[in-house]
Amino acid sequence: MSLSAEIIAVGTEILLGEITNTDAVTVAQALSELGINAYYQTVVGDNPERLKKCILIAKERADIIITTGGLGPTFDDLTKQVAAEAFGKQLVLHEASLERIKGYFTKLGRKMTDNNARQAYLPEGCTVLENDWGTAPGCAIEDGGKILIMLPGPPRECIPMVKYRMVPYLKKLSDAHLVSHGIHIYGMGESEVESRISSFAETMTNPTLAPYAKDGEVLLRVTGKAKTEEEADAITRPVIERVEEILGDVVYGVDIPSLHAAAFEILREKRLTLATAESCTGGLCAKLITDIPGSSEVFYGGVCAYTNDIKMKLLGIESGLLDTYGAVSEECARALSAAACEKFGTDAGIGVTGYADPNSGDEKNPGGTVYVAVTVKGVTVCSKIYQPRGRELAKERAAQEAFNLLRRAVEGL
Amino acid sequence: MSLSAEIIAVGTEILLGEITNTDAVTVAQALSELGINAYYQTVVGDNPERLKKCILIAKERADIIITTGGLGPTFDDLTKQVAAEAFGKQLVLHEASLERIKGYFTKLGRKMTDNNARQAYLPEGCTVLENDWGTAPGCAIEDGGKILIMLPGPPRECIPMVKYRMVPYLKKLSDAHLVSHGIHIYGMGESEVESRISSFAETMTNPTLAPYAKDGEVLLRVTGKAKTEEEADAITRPVIERVEEILGDVVYGVDIPSLHAAAFEILREKRLTLATAESCTGGLCAKLITDIPGSSEVFYGGVCAYTNDIKMKLLGIESGLLDTYGAVSEECARALSAAACEKFGTDAGIGVTGYADPNSGDEKNPGGTVYVAVTVKGVTVCSKIYQPRGRELAKERAAQEAFNLLRRAVEGL
Repeated sequence: MSLSAEIIAVGTEILLGEITNTDAVTVAQALSELGINAYYQTVVGDNPERLKKCILIAKERADIIITTGGLGPTFDDLTKQVAAEAFGKQLVLHEASLERIKGYFTKLGRKMTDNNARQAYLPEGCTVLENDWGTAPGCAIEDGGKILIMLPGPPRECIPMVKYRMVPYLKKLSDAHLVSHGIHIYGMGESEVESRISSFAETMTNPTLAPYAKDGEVLLRVTGKAKTEEEADAITRPVIERVEEILGDVVYGVDIPSLHAAAFEILREKRLTLATAESCTGGLCAKLITDIPGSSEVFYGGVCAYTNDIKMKLLGIESGLLDTYGAVSEECARALSAAACEKFGTDAGIGVTGYADPNSGDEKNPGGTVYVAVTVKGVTVCSKIYQPRGRELAKERAAQEAFNLLRRAVEGL
Repeated sequence: MSLSAEIIAVGTEILLGEITNTDAVTVAQALSELGINAYYQTVVGDNPERLKKCILIAKERADIIITTGGLGPTFDDLTKQVAAEAFGKQLVLHEASLERIKGYFTKLGRKMTDNNARQAYLPEGCTVLENDWGTAPGCAIEDGGKILIMLPGPPRECIPMVKYRMVPYLKKLSDAHLVSHGIHIYGMGESEVESRISSFAETMTNPTLAPYAKDGEVLLRVTGKAKTEEEADAITRPVIERVEEILGDVVYGVDIPSLHAAAFEILREKRLTLATAESCTGGLCAKLITDIPGSSEVFYGGVCAYTNDIKMKLLGIESGLLDTYGAVSEECARALSAAACEKFGTDAGIGVTGYADPNSGDEKNPGGTVYVAVTVKGVTVCSKIYQPRGRELAKERAAQEAFNLLRRAVEGL
């Protein structure tokens, strides 16, 4: 049995071009991994008549309809009412959901306003999809062989709701098990990755191997399909090994979310500590490492030194070095990473300095040039990146480079 | 006459979740500025039957259909063929377009392959929209009061084609101008905002007033429609003023992207300098402020002090204070913001300490509790937030609170 799906996003702000429909990407990727074909996506505004028409069209041409958005407490949140109507159902109060919403407000020390109670009204006979990441519960209706799943719109809620509610719900319907692993690559472009693995990948049908380029990295997704999860997983393993053989050290991890997470894991494993001394990345390296639960085991802290004065005063960078080489230089980056180790008393240090803004820079170092250094147990390595496409992008690229240098430096210990 | 539109994106890679449909955002924003209501967006794969059905549905419910994608030279690029069919037209060779494509390859020093000639076949009687950014021309068909405009899919072609081809083409048809402003609110929930403005908002039809909740904030969008841009803008002004009156100081700005941008603007205006001393936000406040171009005018730097030892050593926090009150306390937050000012020699300082991780914390301060302090010219204010839904969320919420405190503190100076 091969099921087909349609994704309907409800929200006038998408139609106005105010926000990008990233929920559709989240849902589409999840369906794709489940082996469910999504043939259509629709976006419609907060308008009951048009929404109803869209749901009726989707009911004709798809087995599964996933809606995102329009579950909140305000007058323009009307997905549940309209969907219930389209499926000939009444909305009824779901006591447990009301209690959850009340509890949420109590915890925050606020009084629940009446309109929030509306979120607890759900179509009769539906499967409630509890929302642990917001107030509006999701739900699933099954009727006449068609399934409609409603998910909240805010990506912070939609992403976990897809992963922990929609996927498990749909997995029960599917007779095949899919297992998917992500091979994470940094330091090689998508076309280079593709051409290196092509002769190997082209002959494969199960598992499949698909490359995605994103944020300066490449992700190779290996997806195996079999009757059991164990079997599906087993057939992906030799493929992962083969890819690692072919690509070598640019593979920084499998099923690991980021370079900083990869670096953190090795540091923790080897019981090494870390500090940062950042100029142009302005605290981004510290921010990224402290996003990881348990980071306090490894990370002591960092200094963001945005002026030369602060570099000297707080980190002890010598004025002679700054005069001779300038603040944006390999020498300064090396001094910063060494200073991070010294000032914080850690095994490893990251030092970053550069011109993040494309409109800054000088002749030798145009805007987008950043020097990144890593010191581990007294040994410092440094590299230079150039990303002139925007301030935030240059900062992100520099942080990736820093954590990649760090990963490589500590791996060898 | 108010025209309505539908945007159809053609591409299997969007349905698979491999790429985000950013063309829809580009087209939607342009339509919105033209005063054309886009009531629907559709995404369909590179499949002729399904694409044809989508075009026929769109023809029923919209005056203008904009397609993006499927104009290239390969076998799965079939938008023109299918659209021509749906409008009962033949494809005919457009000589000038063929010459342009040939010229493009000559310029690159390459020979044009035969499949590239397919791009020069266009629906009979169409208006050709020359593509100066790629090989595939766009085109517009008018028939029976309906208009269909086809644009290329790659964003670097689609963006200029929208701006320089689609917009001028449609401007001739439209008689209304839209102007939209965003009123940014922090410190009041969406439902509370809505209930306060409802009696005022419900009677309005032009301008319209719509609330959106996102990332701990509320955005109220005021959109005015009139014959000229000036008139459209003029009718939004009294609405903005009225909302500011009703909601008071929770409105932190109009058409400003974030709380940290609002705080930065006031600091810059008043020529005040800033430093940060962060524990649990781990450099996020520094990261946010340094994302803003020109931040070096205001920001000297920060310390991320992730251990008690570092708090004492680098920031001079007294061990007695940490022993008596603990690192997660109002007293410690206040000491941190004061220390930021002192160590960096700035007018203003931000101090943050707390348990960002929901799985951390103690009896007095459960996980998600964060103390945020701001010192400006020797005066310190402090507040406490509680966001137990995730580490990153707690960090973000704390940073918002910090920049809100800062904005309020410096506004009064």
